[in-house]
Amino acid sequence: MELGETKMHKEMTFEFQAMGVIHTPHDKCEGTPIQPVYAQEHVGTVALFTKYADGIQDLDGFDRIWLVYFLHCAPPGKMRVVPFRDNREHGIFATRSPCRPNPIGLSCVRLLGIEGQTLRVSGVDMLEGTPLLDIKPYVPEFDSYPDAMAGWFDQLRVNRTHADSRFNTEKSK
Amino acid sequence: MELGETKMHKEMTFEFQAMGVIHTPHDKCEGTPIQPVYAQEHVGTVALFTKYADGIQDLDGFDRIWLVYFLHCAPPGKMRVVPFRDNREHGIFATRSPCRPNPIGLSCVRLLGIEGQTLRVSGVDMLEGTPLLDIKPYVPEFDSYPDAMAGWFDQLRVNRTHADSRFNTEKSK
Repeated sequence: MELGETKMHKEMTFEFQAMGVIHTPHDKCEGTPIQPVYAQEHVGTVALFTKYADGIQDLDGFDRIWLVYFLHCAPPGKMRVVPFRDNREHGIFATRSPCRPNPIGLSCVRLLGIEGQTLRVSGVDMLEGTPLLDIKPYVPEFDSYPDAMAGWFDQLRVNRTHADSRFNTEKSK
Repeated sequence: MELGETKMHKEMTFEFQAMGVIHTPHDKCEGTPIQPVYAQEHVGTVALFTKYADGIQDLDGFDRIWLVYFLHCAPPGKMRVVPFRDNREHGIFATRSPCRPNPIGLSCVRLLGIEGQTLRVSGVDMLEGTPLLDIKPYVPEFDSYPDAMAGWFDQLRVNRTHADSRFNTEKSK
């Protein structure tokens, strides 16, 4: 189907700016937890730039927040990958692998505290120095679907919880 | 705290491209459901551009998917807003309001079916013609925290489920 695939749409590009930097104990891909659920003991900080500091008013009431960020060390996008949790190939959009066409990361982390314009969080599964794009509050009514079927994840073949070197790039080694 | 707030970081900008277009029945903000949970009867389609079609292999096994998209009709970012669900002001990052510094939308929709490179989904809460940035599979183990406390949402003062005109811009009227 070529519907809607006009020249205009193909050329639609959007520019986003870092709102801050995520600091984590992970300085290379290999060994980094692949999701917050496997990184519960890993604490990091989200250092917001001053101009965004007013935006976190009342965030302290939330147990969890979504961090939306730029996967700054991800290799170029691929349409099919063998993800960390399987030994078979899947479409990139059926995985949470980092080498996406638009390298946007999404992690639900636990908010431990706020000091000034710095958030202390646990469950960090991103690399040190990751540029922050957005913070959203986690709202179970909007975000929690415990019984949703999860395709190949439900037939798990590989119980890997930490990254290996498969998505390494020169900058992330 | 000015830590990490170097000139380099302040100038970090990132460019993303539309991967497709989300078609929905909503042609103006006013009256559009504010979240997928209030849009369960609203069916839309995600029309992927051809170059990304290979990326949806095995997506059909998932009940739900995250759509990450550009809020193309959102007004300029504000640090504090009165969100649809309250009559008091909160920091933008403690809300799901559209006028974010980086206008990135996130919706967990139900995947009804796939035909070619077009996904049929329900729970669409975005406007017609929304540019798609990413698709991620919804994985309860990673994404579902039914008991997370949700700050001011838990002391709900306004039971609004559909948008009014407060975030209207010229282009979204």
